[in-house]
Amino acid sequence: MEAEIIDEPGALAERMGITIAEAAPERIVGSMPVDGNTQPYGMLHGGASCVLAETLGSIGAAMYAYRLFAGRAVGVDINATHHRAAREGTVTGVATPLRLGRTVVTYEIVITDDGGKRVCTARLTCVLLRS
Amino acid sequence: MEAEIIDEPGALAERMGITIAEAAPERIVGSMPVDGNTQPYGMLHGGASCVLAETLGSIGAAMYAYRLFAGRAVGVDINATHHRAAREGTVTGVATPLRLGRTVVTYEIVITDDGGKRVCTARLTCVLLRS
Amino acid sequence: MEAEIIDEPGALAERMGITIAEAAPERIVGSMPVDGNTQPYGMLHGGASCVLAETLGSIGAAMYAYRLFAGRAVGVDINATHHRAAREGTVTGVATPLRLGRTVVTYEIVITDDGGKRVCTARLTCVLLRS
Amino acid sequence: MEAEIIDEPGALAERMGITIAEAAPERIVGSMPVDGNTQPYGMLHGGASCVLAETLGSIGAAMYAYRLFAGRAVGVDINATHHRAAREGTVTGVATPLRLGRTVVTYEIVITDDGGKRVCTARLTCVLLRS
Repeated sequence: MEAEIIDEPGALAERMGITIAEAAPERIVGSMPVDGNTQPYGMLHGGASCVLAETLGSIGAAMYAYRLFAGRAVGVDINATHHRAAREGTVTGVATPLRLGRTVVTYEIVITDDGGKRVCTARLTCVLLRS
Repeated sequence: MEAEIIDEPGALAERMGITIAEAAPERIVGSMPVDGNTQPYGMLHGGASCVLAETLGSIGAAMYAYRLFAGRAVGVDINATHHRAAREGTVTGVATPLRLGRTVVTYEIVITDDGGKRVCTARLTCVLLRS
Repeated sequence: MEAEIIDEPGALAERMGITIAEAAPERIVGSMPVDGNTQPYGMLHGGASCVLAETLGSIGAAMYAYRLFAGRAVGVDINATHHRAAREGTVTGVATPLRLGRTVVTYEIVITDDGGKRVCTARLTCVLLRS
Repeated sequence: MEAEIIDEPGALAERMGITIAEAAPERIVGSMPVDGNTQPYGMLHGGASCVLAETLGSIGAAMYAYRLFAGRAVGVDINATHHRAAREGTVTGVATPLRLGRTVVTYEIVITDDGGKRVCTARLTCVLLRS
């Protein structure tokens, strides 16, 4: 299942050019280009950061749920603060678990630009289900 | 400028098939298909709801900022709770201002599926700048 | 249990002067004075709005969990946007469910001042547990 | 002004027993007892974590705004995820800036219990005003 998640990123992530570089419950890393994911003024769309954050956190939560009891994870709450605009190149997100419980898991996702400057900080909470 | 925003939705919104049906600072309505905006399990990606929410709220904030002092709006904080899965058809978002201030504006965005069931509730806070 | 929750608001709510006027899973209403719940500049502390919001939403979630399967509810995620300052009198919060599921419930809480102006909008997500 | 903020924590923080151990724009540390700040089941009230988080972040934002242009800071958006219950002793929060801009500042606040376990993660966004 873990490989499956990485091999098939889903239609939206594929459409946006999201690629996954690392995937384990303890750390998930992925990137996407700014180009094609912009709002009307040519800057990275804030919602694009949310898609990257939710993609990364969901991969970690799904892997953890599968490891814990062959279960699955459902994303419930996401929040994101946009710190600065990204205009070109690639942004990279790193998801780290803040808490891996038996019912709820929460990931923090930090997104930076090519210069290493923080573009967005997000937090995703998922509920684990025995499927 | 208001017409410009509606006429040019930006690369990401266009790629995702977001269409705007109404646009005024007091109410913005838009839709997108589930198909093509899904995660690996074929359900609407939670981040897609964030893109729709931020698109709608940003249009309202930009129109309001322009009306107020020919300024512009920058999205700062977004949060979203995913209430249920959407698997097919179209989802529609309605953005309504909770507060239109001189420095900060906040919109609530409610996203429903074709059956009228609530898929997601989001809130977007933007800062207004004199450009 | 429902009566118990209302009769025993807990140490923090009591200390802050929070009173409950209505309590049912579908609607919870409560108030608190601004005086005594202020930050250094004499305005209502933003965190006080969070306490009121989480108190009201938690009462609704607990009553709903008890009705559903004699279970209990645990608050997981809260977010709040502060729209304007409150300097005197009383603020009143109204909590309304956005989604009452079998695993997760979410409430929206709107807090207004004595003049009916919106001070804060919050959203609380709780997980339901079979206790 | 910086000293004034620390010397006068405000009515709510005082009532809740919040004490400040460090205060600078780059790092703010404070604590509060669980006892007296509980919900009906005797655990730390989730809203209490929000009060601690918003207190710490607001002190940092106020000090930064004063240093930057003798301005002030207004809290706009707060979010918090409650990771585990605290039943006794003291909880300690550490606020760190994620972004110190000229219009907006954002702090992350991590709250831990006496055993060093993470109780809550919060993020506070403030707008800076030239007063």
